[in-house]
Amino acid sequence: MRRPVLDFYVEFASTYSYPAAMRIGARAEAAGVVVRWRPFLLGPVFKAHGWDTSPFNLYPSKGRYMWRDLERICAGLDLPFRRPDPFPPPSLLAARVAHVGLDEGWGEDFCRAVYAAAFGEGRPIGDEAVLRDLIAGLGQSPEPVLARASSDVIKTRLRAATAEAQRAGVFGAPSFVAADDELFWGQDRMADALAWAVRASS
Amino acid sequence: MRRPVLDFYVEFASTYSYPAAMRIGARAEAAGVVVRWRPFLLGPVFKAHGWDTSPFNLYPSKGRYMWRDLERICAGLDLPFRRPDPFPPPSLLAARVAHVGLDEGWGEDFCRAVYAAAFGEGRPIGDEAVLRDLIAGLGQSPEPVLARASSDVIKTRLRAATAEAQRAGVFGAPSFVAADDELFWGQDRMADALAWAVRASS
Repeated sequence: MRRPVLDFYVEFASTYSYPAAMRIGARAEAAGVVVRWRPFLLGPVFKAHGWDTSPFNLYPSKGRYMWRDLERICAGLDLPFRRPDPFPPPSLLAARVAHVGLDEGWGEDFCRAVYAAAFGEGRPIGDEAVLRDLIAGLGQSPEPVLARASSDVIKTRLRAATAEAQRAGVFGAPSFVAADDELFWGQDRMADALAWAVRASS
Repeated sequence: MRRPVLDFYVEFASTYSYPAAMRIGARAEAAGVVVRWRPFLLGPVFKAHGWDTSPFNLYPSKGRYMWRDLERICAGLDLPFRRPDPFPPPSLLAARVAHVGLDEGWGEDFCRAVYAAAFGEGRPIGDEAVLRDLIAGLGQSPEPVLARASSDVIKTRLRAATAEAQRAGVFGAPSFVAADDELFWGQDRMADALAWAVRASS
């Protein structure tokens, strides 16, 4: 029997990805599911919709609701919450560093650290100085990591993750892909996605 | 102690409102919550976003996901599902009839009948003949009901419901408003909305 697997598409500028990223480890472990973290960029996806920024900025009523809802969700999960400024933060460099980390075994911790900084503390994760801090906090040397983050190999890997997301039909984050092609969108669908992965592998 | 109350904003062209409408009665009863059904129109809300049709038509990847997701959700709830054509169906007349029914005590049954026809059987609920059928199926005489549906009183009531929805920050359907100003969007947030209403009244 194959171990159930779930692809977890995250974008560091995505607000609802924060509670999802902080919870998925324990939830997946309890369900016996292997999570493959897939940091990607929503920018190209939004551009295909004709959007040049987050829909939460383009549509104020959606944005107002989202900030209140996120505050409520974080309170319910005992997660600190602070609205980042600017929003959305530039997430390209963080995503590249995450791919370095995933390759070297500290990627999931880095992803959680980025989300905690962005939405738990409101830090500007687009700043290289903030990323240096987070990398060092995981016991890694920032210089070689940042050098690798701008290598062609890593750039290509991030582009591939974004292309895969689009092929899977992803149009927002967080998204989950179970059994290779069953898409679930939104942090509130994590349990459904995990259950699908388990059922598909049994 | 005041009995907990929840405003339930539904639009008959809204796909995810279908499973919400079919489930909310039993869920609310179990929670001891009084549900106030508020049929409204999303058209003016979408127009404010610059949209002239459903976002599921404007953004194909969202649309593809929604139809698959709705099929999955209905299968999980043992609800029949059939995609209506055209989509979105014109929902103005159905919404006006619903306000007549809510005034006369058969409105919730009518709302469920419209959703079952639209998304369970794929019937064109924009057609007056279909609405006649549904009204008669509830033991009402279609002619006087349709006459009342086009009265100024009912037109004003529907416009008021839409204005109230916008004031409450509603930007999609289904939406729930607990304790007068706490908004929840989406059929998957029904439990959260009911719990909020209960907590707020205790």
